[in-house]
Amino acid sequence: MPKLIEYKDMSPRAKAVVDGIAQARGIDPADINNVWKGLARHPDVMERFAAEMKAAFAPGKLDPLTKELIYLAVSITNQCEYCIASHGAMARRKGMTEEMFEEFMAVVLAAQKGNKITMAYRVPVDPAFEEK
Amino acid sequence: MPKLIEYKDMSPRAKAVVDGIAQARGIDPADINNVWKGLARHPDVMERFAAEMKAAFAPGKLDPLTKELIYLAVSITNQCEYCIASHGAMARRKGMTEEMFEEFMAVVLAAQKGNKITMAYRVPVDPAFEEK
Amino acid sequence: MPKLIEYKDMSPRAKAVVDGIAQARGIDPADINNVWKGLARHPDVMERFAAEMKAAFAPGKLDPLTKELIYLAVSITNQCEYCIASHGAMARRKGMTEEMFEEFMAVVLAAQKGNKITMAYRVPVDPAFEEK
Amino acid sequence: MPKLIEYKDMSPRAKAVVDGIAQARGIDPADINNVWKGLARHPDVMERFAAEMKAAFAPGKLDPLTKELIYLAVSITNQCEYCIASHGAMARRKGMTEEMFEEFMAVVLAAQKGNKITMAYRVPVDPAFEEK
Amino acid sequence: MPKLIEYKDMSPRAKAVVDGIAQARGIDPADINNVWKGLARHPDVMERFAAEMKAAFAPGKLDPLTKELIYLAVSITNQCEYCIASHGAMARRKGMTEEMFEEFMAVVLAAQKGNKITMAYRVPVDPAFEEK
Amino acid sequence: MPKLIEYKDMSPRAKAVVDGIAQARGIDPADINNVWKGLARHPDVMERFAAEMKAAFAPGKLDPLTKELIYLAVSITNQCEYCIASHGAMARRKGMTEEMFEEFMAVVLAAQKGNKITMAYRVPVDPAFEEK
Repeated sequence: MPKLIEYKDMSPRAKAVVDGIAQARGIDPADINNVWKGLARHPDVMERFAAEMKAAFAPGKLDPLTKELIYLAVSITNQCEYCIASHGAMARRKGMTEEMFEEFMAVVLAAQKGNKITMAYRVPVDPAFEEK
Repeated sequence: MPKLIEYKDMSPRAKAVVDGIAQARGIDPADINNVWKGLARHPDVMERFAAEMKAAFAPGKLDPLTKELIYLAVSITNQCEYCIASHGAMARRKGMTEEMFEEFMAVVLAAQKGNKITMAYRVPVDPAFEEK
Repeated sequence: MPKLIEYKDMSPRAKAVVDGIAQARGIDPADINNVWKGLARHPDVMERFAAEMKAAFAPGKLDPLTKELIYLAVSITNQCEYCIASHGAMARRKGMTEEMFEEFMAVVLAAQKGNKITMAYRVPVDPAFEEK
Repeated sequence: MPKLIEYKDMSPRAKAVVDGIAQARGIDPADINNVWKGLARHPDVMERFAAEMKAAFAPGKLDPLTKELIYLAVSITNQCEYCIASHGAMARRKGMTEEMFEEFMAVVLAAQKGNKITMAYRVPVDPAFEEK
Repeated sequence: MPKLIEYKDMSPRAKAVVDGIAQARGIDPADINNVWKGLARHPDVMERFAAEMKAAFAPGKLDPLTKELIYLAVSITNQCEYCIASHGAMARRKGMTEEMFEEFMAVVLAAQKGNKITMAYRVPVDPAFEEK
Repeated sequence: MPKLIEYKDMSPRAKAVVDGIAQARGIDPADINNVWKGLARHPDVMERFAAEMKAAFAPGKLDPLTKELIYLAVSITNQCEYCIASHGAMARRKGMTEEMFEEFMAVVLAAQKGNKITMAYRVPVDPAFEEK
């Protein structure tokens, strides 16, 4: 079985998932991005991931760009090249300027350092930070 | 040498770092949080981390809460308990409601899944996502 | 020194390791897979890894496919492309069907989520789960 | 808001999730384990995780113990203490003997080593491992 | 079975491993550190880890302190509290001064940043760095 | 904006950073390695990383090769291909022989195993390892 399955070769269940995404984005299902072509052989996993992405990016209290930045921060920390490339591109489409990207990177890198410092020095949580 | 050094026992260089942070936050230097007490024996590392944090959270294009959420997303991904506790508390102080926290978690968890899916299925980056 | 060393160019100690693996698998030593060509310049590390792999996959209480799935679960979590590709292929050879692969992925992804949730919410271990 | 919410203090949606899990396991909802008490303030995330866990552990081609071992392998790799404790306990309940646990650990540790070796030596994927 | 097994309660194979370590370190076997008490129920894994540690720290081209620093760098990166505590203590015993520890931390933190930067910006490897 | 920016196309601030590095290394700024070309669009982040690298590798108590090995140990643990390639090359230039590299790998791999073992068996820190 090929690693990527083109839309025309997908099962009906996989096609239905892609149709939903394509319609929401206003694109041709044949132009769906690779992650869905990779998932197409596993319709249960695919449907669940599509539903989870839809729920995560549904309109709410956090604006769409903020959500993309959160997704990108996770992806950089996990070192996932595909997600860095795809959600980096989506963040730009949703308004991320080069200036915002630099600020974002400054926070991401400060966080990496803070994370490793508190582990290396085995810093105990301050009582003031505990939820009550 | 104790793991945590109280303000009164810090070297002049460490005290100066804490003074700067305490002044900016409007708190008593003796109430500085534990990460700085842990770092106090290493003034070079401490000064650099304080400067990096200050620069990362300086006013800019991204609002303060968005920056906290980015920091928190990295910390959850890296599984750093101290940073989850401290920046979770800071995000609340900067306006994160329970509703926003739930939306944030939904994006963070979708991203973890997206990251592992693209690695597991070895999905190649779409040409459309490449920077030009 | 080249990154990969072909069998014919290996040291006697490296050749002996490859001979052992090739014989167990019933293949020509020249067709050994790349990981052993990469390790060939470091015979101590190579011998130890070969011995560890042999012991881990020796007949026992867990069947060979279960062991491949455990190995693959670790490799996906660590995001190691080589190991995902090689042990994915081996799992198929040992009987993993597409249906089993989808079930496997469902568990792997649920575990990633469970891991991050318990860290993010800082969930303490239930006394009932402690070993006695 | 407390970090853990007891069953009696949960919202109706959270209670419904716990009721479903408690019924399936034949336990009192008040004895639900901590991860659900931690998630109870975020019903969307909670419902989705419960549904994902139910689907992942639904009867299928892989037996229940194999699924627990896969879950445990991910949790050890991600170094999630809660999940190691809880799914370690569940694996024992589903039949993992001490002997099987030792074999499992041997594979998990061999995989960690294989993952780091292939990255450190930058080993390219063998053409034979590519899916066709 | 208890999480930690005291020396007096260990199996003969586990005792033999501890005897070897205790003799090399000039300590009483009853004072062996916890990692060996935790491993004692799994003699195969225990023997293999003991042999691997002995080989890794055998006299060679790198001095003992350098090896401890390498071990500690890995442990901080993996965020393993036990190993940070134990190998931090061992590094001090082998001559690590507070000044050296600070220099070490500076390199560890610069590396974390370099790692995340090259991933975030998806930097391709320079041809000059490729092995020939 | 291209992923990599050549020296001739860099902003004055980015050029100044590269000039400093090139001068210290005795190379032509046009031959700067890729990480700096990737960072060139974000001068704040770039200046801070350059300053941090300079401080981390400044002459001190640890010799230059030891620092490279620490950097490389972090990079292998984080699985950063670029950093493994670049700092592997730098370690060789600073005197790492193939024999030393093998010893280094033996320690790195033993540490990975020790890290996962102590997490999997949930080993508590020995009181003797606590700092006083």
